[in-house]
This record gives sequence, structure tokens and C-alpha cells, in this order.
Amino acid sequence: MTKIAIAGSGAMGSRFGYMLQAAGNDVVLLDNWVEHVQAINTKGLTVAIAGQDVQHVQIPAALPTAIKDVQDVIIIFTKSMQLGAMLQSIKPLIGEKTKVVCLLNGLGHPETIERYLPKHNIFVGITLWTAGLTGPGEISLSGSGSVELQNVAPEAKGAAEELVAMLSAAGLHATYSADVLFSIWRKACVNGTLNSLCALLDCNIAQLGRTSQVNSLLASIVAEFSAVAATEAVDLDVPTTIAHIDQLFDPTQAGEHYPSMHQDLIQHHRLTEIDYLNGYVARKGQERGIPTPVNQLITQLVHTKEALVIEK
Amino acid sequence: MTKIAIAGSGAMGSRFGYMLQAAGNDVVLLDNWVEHVQAINTKGLTVAIAGQDVQHVQIPAALPTAIKDVQDVIIIFTKSMQLGAMLQSIKPLIGEKTKVVCLLNGLGHPETIERYLPKHNIFVGITLWTAGLTGPGEISLSGSGSVELQNVAPEAKGAAEELVAMLSAAGLHATYSADVLFSIWRKACVNGTLNSLCALLDCNIAQLGRTSQVNSLLASIVAEFSAVAATEAVDLDVPTTIAHIDQLFDPTQAGEHYPSMHQDLIQHHRLTEIDYLNGYVARKGQERGIPTPVNQLITQLVHTKEALVIEK
Repeated sequence: MTKIAIAGSGAMGSRFGYMLQAAGNDVVLLDNWVEHVQAINTKGLTVAIAGQDVQHVQIPAALPTAIKDVQDVIIIFTKSMQLGAMLQSIKPLIGEKTKVVCLLNGLGHPETIERYLPKHNIFVGITLWTAGLTGPGEISLSGSGSVELQNVAPEAKGAAEELVAMLSAAGLHATYSADVLFSIWRKACVNGTLNSLCALLDCNIAQLGRTSQVNSLLASIVAEFSAVAATEAVDLDVPTTIAHIDQLFDPTQAGEHYPSMHQDLIQHHRLTEIDYLNGYVARKGQERGIPTPVNQLITQLVHTKEALVIEK
Repeated sequence: MTKIAIAGSGAMGSRFGYMLQAAGNDVVLLDNWVEHVQAINTKGLTVAIAGQDVQHVQIPAALPTAIKDVQDVIIIFTKSMQLGAMLQSIKPLIGEKTKVVCLLNGLGHPETIERYLPKHNIFVGITLWTAGLTGPGEISLSGSGSVELQNVAPEAKGAAEELVAMLSAAGLHATYSADVLFSIWRKACVNGTLNSLCALLDCNIAQLGRTSQVNSLLASIVAEFSAVAATEAVDLDVPTTIAHIDQLFDPTQAGEHYPSMHQDLIQHHRLTEIDYLNGYVARKGQERGIPTPVNQLITQLVHTKEALVIEK
């Protein structure tokens, strides 16, 4: 049995933990939200799947600092800004052979993870799965998804393929990606346009898509993402990326959806992940001599809006 | 008696018209709002001055196309985007000797006015007077103010001084400015930072001033204003301008005020004057080879927000 810790067991972490345990792995859900951990440990993880009876699934949960045994695999599902603190908390769980998988949105996470373990044990990727947290210990699941994964160190391809097999055996539809950095950058660029603009302008994706200047806005943001991506050997072609984003304006696709940054900033008055999207592009652009005034301004505007709504 | 037409008789136009008529001039108030014109013509201009009895002042009002006699002086108080259309409407009122005075906020107005009359009859400036329109035919006045004015053509200094004398005789505290372009640019820069940011971020000036990144935001906007101002021989020093803006964050100064662009965009869902502030800097920067990505983005964000709120 593979020992798997989910580091950050909100909606997505709980979904992955639930599916991996159902496939026969030895899973523990780690989270800093005490009521959530207690609810899971007393009445099980409550799983509501569209069209099925609600299940109460026995699955161990704990605060990240409460367990000490080394894991085979750790899958991280924190918010971007909690990644470093989570790794610090779970240091005892990371052994010489522990593989750490990071599927978080945003840029710059491998840098953070490399401070805690060697590159050959780090695996990064993206996921299109979704999940909702409806209360402490309660998740709601619908739809399907997939995972793309790759090793950070070239010599660790075999280990990445084993992780892909483990995830797919749990129904998580994982594939090995030969260029996962491209997928990560492209997803970050989608989030750095749609999430950031919908949050700043307080609208959903379809509403944004109907405004006349949206393609000029996209073009100026994407051009800077592309220029900084090139310094990491990622070829993020501007017209292709804009066309990819444009598809999402379709109301029958993601259109009527309010992106997560809108939910964080406008609906819940929480800090956003802007520093791992537009903020990363602005910061790395500055370090590498690439002008990124547009992403810098968007980052500053979002941080200023955070200060305003959290003050209120 | 000097024949004066006020072209655009909202709150500020009505204030100027009221004070100039009281000083013995022959004033007509021109406006496109039919109910406003009718109310003034039937019950007089209703003037509420803090601490005084409400007055009903007989003063002629008309639609801009309804009168045809050439004026000595025309003072323009339209919204920026209505300036061209107003001048088109009042062409018959502009004779060879008619002086046109423009105290509108924003940049680029002389260019528009020069399409309708020779430079030596154009006078531009700024005013710090305020006024409120409380209903059709009703204005509310409080506080004091001033006017700074200068001729556009060097040879018209004498005429500018006569206009200054006429305004001051009406209690409007006018002074001749030897460098009114500087004052216009500085005021546009205040509006292009505080108005635009408060509108985009939905906050008042004091709230904006308390956020930690506000000075970085100001710096990036003001630097581009300064670079474009330099191409018009205006020396808008960046640190001095930022210090000037910083003063206004004081809650005992303008701090608790929601700027006019916030009122237009957020409160009343109207088009803003962004194209005459940040939009002018972006446009002229592009024409003159000066990078203005920050002001271009702010202009696009404000236009996109206009489209969203006017759609709703």
C-alpha cells in the first residue's frame, strides 16, 4: 500500500484523497482548519456526488504538524501562498524517497519546493478536476477531469510515470506530459487574464468577453507572459494563447463562471493568488530585464483592492 | 454690457452664469437638457447658497441651437466628450471677435476648439470652484474657489487679462497665469491618478491613500504623464507631483471625497472622461513614441468597466 499524504485537504485535496483511498492506497488528509479535521475524524468525509446518495467515508485526517511518519507520496493542494509554510510543517514526512506532487495553479512553485527536497523527487503538473467544499468535512463532486504530470529532474521520468499510473488507477485520468511547463504557463496565462480581470472589474467571464476592448487587454497581458515564458524556454505563442482564452468566453463553456480570484477578492474578501500569476511575470520580468508594466500594474491594483476590501 | 453665453450650464456653468449676470453682464445659459432649460425659464434659476435664503434668479436659458446672435464671450462647461458637439451647435454664436474660454478638466481641449475658431480667440485654464446640481433648474453652492486663465496665442495676452478682470469683477477670483499648461497638466495628473484609481477600485481618496502600494501606483502613472507632458514643453516633475497628490489623501482635505469619475462610473453608470486624462497620455505617447503601457491599461480597464456597468 502506498502511503499518501494530502497536504492541504480543501475541496480538491479531499477529492484526490477520497479517490486515492478508494483505489486501495493508505491516505491521510492534512489540513490546518481544525473544525474540518475534527468533522472528518468524527463522522467521516461527507462526499456528495451528483445523482448519488451522500457517503460518509472513513479516512484519517490530521493537522499537518500532528503526524510524523515518512510518506511515499505527498500531494500538495494548499493555496499558493501557503505552500512554503505547509512544506515547513510537514518536513518530518519527507524522506529520501518521498515524491512530492504539486498541481497548484500558478508559477514559481518548484522554486519553493526545491528548498525542502531534491529536484528528482519533485513532480509538477496541472489538473482540470474541480470540487466544492460545502462545510467542515463536506465536499461536493461533479463532472470529470484530468491530470498532466512531469518530473522536474530529467532522470526522474520513470518515477513520474509510476505516479501517473497510481493516479489513473484511482480514476484521476492522469497522463505523462513531455512539456508540462507549457501547460502550467498556459493555464497561468488563462488565470492571469480571466481571473485577474474578472476580479478587478467584478464580472464573470462571459460578461468580460462581450466588452469591446477585451482583446486589447488580453493582448497586452499575454505579450508579457509570453516574453517571460521564453526566458524559461517555454514557447507561449501570443495569438494562439489569445485564441485559447477567447474560447472560454463562450457562455456554454466557462462563460457564466465567476473565476476563483473573483470569489476570493469580491465575494469573500480574501487575499488572492495574484503573486503567482501576474505578480510572478512582473517580478521575473524585472529580474531578467524584460518590461512587464502591464502585469505589474494589474498586480498592484489587485493588492490595493485586497487592502481595501479586507480593511472594510 | 458684455454678452456672455455659458455653453453647458450644469452645476458649474450655472454658477458662473449666475455670478456673471449678478455683476451686470448679459448672460444666457445654454444646455441640451430640456427640463433644465424649461425650469430655469419658468421659475428662474433656483440658487441655494449655504446659510442663505433660496433665491429664484431670472436668467435666460435656451437649447444651444435655439439662439443665433454672436456673443462677446462664450464660457464652456460641457463634459469633455461633449465639447466638439457643443461647438458645432453654437457655431452661429461665434463671431470674429468672440472669445471662447475653456476651463474643463482634462487634456487635449484646445485641439478640439481650434477646429472652430482662431487661436487668438481661445483662452484656457482651470478652476477650483465647485457646484452641485440638485434638480432641473436647481443649483447648490458652497465654499469658495478660483480661476487660472491664459491665452493660447501669445499675442492675445491683453484679451486674457480683460477676461480675468471680467471674471474677478464677478467674484470668481481669477488670475492671469503665465504657465497655465502646467496647471492644466498637474490637475489632469491628479485626476488621472485619484479619479481613475478610485473609480476602478471603488473607494474614496482617503481609503486609497491608506493602502500600502498606492505610491508605487502613483509613481508608474505620473512617470508617463511627465514624459508626455515634456513633449508639450511642460515640466511635470515626478516627485513634486506625487507629493502634491499625497497631500490630498488627508481626510481633512479631499480625503473622504469620492471623485467625479467614481460618481460617473460606479454610482451613476455613466461614461467617464478617461479619454481626456489617462487616455490622452496613452494616445499621445503612442503617437510620439513614448511608452505609456500603464495609462493605456488604465484607460482600457475603465472603458471595459463602463461597458460592463452600462450593460447591466
